[in-house]
Amino acid sequence: MEITSLQNAKVKYWVSLKNKKIRDKDQVFLVEGDHLINEALKKNLVVETISTVSKDRNYFVTKEIMQKISNQKSICKEAAVCKFLKSEDIKGNVLILDGLQDPGNLGTIIRSAVAFNFNTVILSIDSVDLYNDKVIRASEGMIFHLNVLRGDLKDYILKLKAKGYEIIGTKVTYTKKIKYSKKNIALVIGNEGKGIKKNILNLCDKYKYIPMEKTCESLNAGVAASILMYEVYNAQIL
Amino acid sequence: MEITSLQNAKVKYWVSLKNKKIRDKDQVFLVEGDHLINEALKKNLVVETISTVSKDRNYFVTKEIMQKISNQKSICKEAAVCKFLKSEDIKGNVLILDGLQDPGNLGTIIRSAVAFNFNTVILSIDSVDLYNDKVIRASEGMIFHLNVLRGDLKDYILKLKAKGYEIIGTKVTYTKKIKYSKKNIALVIGNEGKGIKKNILNLCDKYKYIPMEKTCESLNAGVAASILMYEVYNAQIL
Repeated sequence: MEITSLQNAKVKYWVSLKNKKIRDKDQVFLVEGDHLINEALKKNLVVETISTVSKDRNYFVTKEIMQKISNQKSICKEAAVCKFLKSEDIKGNVLILDGLQDPGNLGTIIRSAVAFNFNTVILSIDSVDLYNDKVIRASEGMIFHLNVLRGDLKDYILKLKAKGYEIIGTKVTYTKKIKYSKKNIALVIGNEGKGIKKNILNLCDKYKYIPMEKTCESLNAGVAASILMYEVYNAQIL
Repeated sequence: MEITSLQNAKVKYWVSLKNKKIRDKDQVFLVEGDHLINEALKKNLVVETISTVSKDRNYFVTKEIMQKISNQKSICKEAAVCKFLKSEDIKGNVLILDGLQDPGNLGTIIRSAVAFNFNTVILSIDSVDLYNDKVIRASEGMIFHLNVLRGDLKDYILKLKAKGYEIIGTKVTYTKKIKYSKKNIALVIGNEGKGIKKNILNLCDKYKYIPMEKTCESLNAGVAASILMYEVYNAQIL
């Protein structure tokens, strides 16, 4: 179907998906660009496709319309409305994010999690929205290859412990060196400024810090999470 | 001095510092927030300070003025005009960035470089501007603790080789495992999409890749650079 009016109800709906409340209500989100659309197609999550160049897509629209629905300065030729990802059972190594706020960091972490064989990411209630467009872009499509859960971290950690997981918290101050076991690991990364909440830190079995020069107080949260997942990947798999 | 008019010439000048050409002409840039101002003061780089709360600063301005000169949505109470960093001689480990484009990545990399004892970062001519406000923010003030150079990478690499540096290129495809020597190392990281340019790759002595699951084609450039600097730090110092 061809749409040329910015006032079209479909266009208004696509624009409304910039709003988290609308996304949550309808359990869909918008992705932009071939790469992300293809990743979503592989997982059967595409509801409808929108294009400025191909009449083979569900909707053929003007550049002005794409501009309006896009979250980017340089707009893509194609976009798609996708269903929210399905939650799966927890298996393999887990990354727990306690109050992570920056969407770019979450996207980067999702990309690294897939790279280093962490199958599940658990977000605390107060973490950034998974379907924020910056998260999706920074994940480079890896969001479709990961099991992402959201909920009360205390409940999740107790469940993980019951399943035999070792819970490893992270600190920016010195803690003694630990060896990663071959058991399933749940690694906890905290908020960019405040770190891990005290009640969550208290539930951890072991603590890990990344040694660094004193001039630098801490690393970017995405970098810290990635380095530690890489270390676990090295210790367990390589 | 108190300023209340948005039309004031000083205000217009501070706003103009959002423009790279003006920054380059005057060799100054704007930083926002206590933390960055304090880091700049330590290095004697502050030209003038601007505040919405304290009359002790050089300029006492309204919130509307701060809003106008700020690059952030939630404005800071204080800002400062700072001189460009002075270039120093190359010493210690070096990170070379070939066409890095994302300002957040550069800021993150600068932060990690200071953390992992890389003293110098060399930017290719086509890399993102060091004084882009997003670079400065993402560096968390670490920009003031690093020697940053910009120029023709081929010239720099030849100079580094003459000084006995080992030049290590990075690839996203498999290369055989290497051991880091105790010699000074120059690590080369490429553009986010295209990697390292062929003529630069050909100048490298060794190549390093980060092993990862096949589902993920590559890591975020800031993450990749940080992981490799951390590996060098581990091999040489810890």
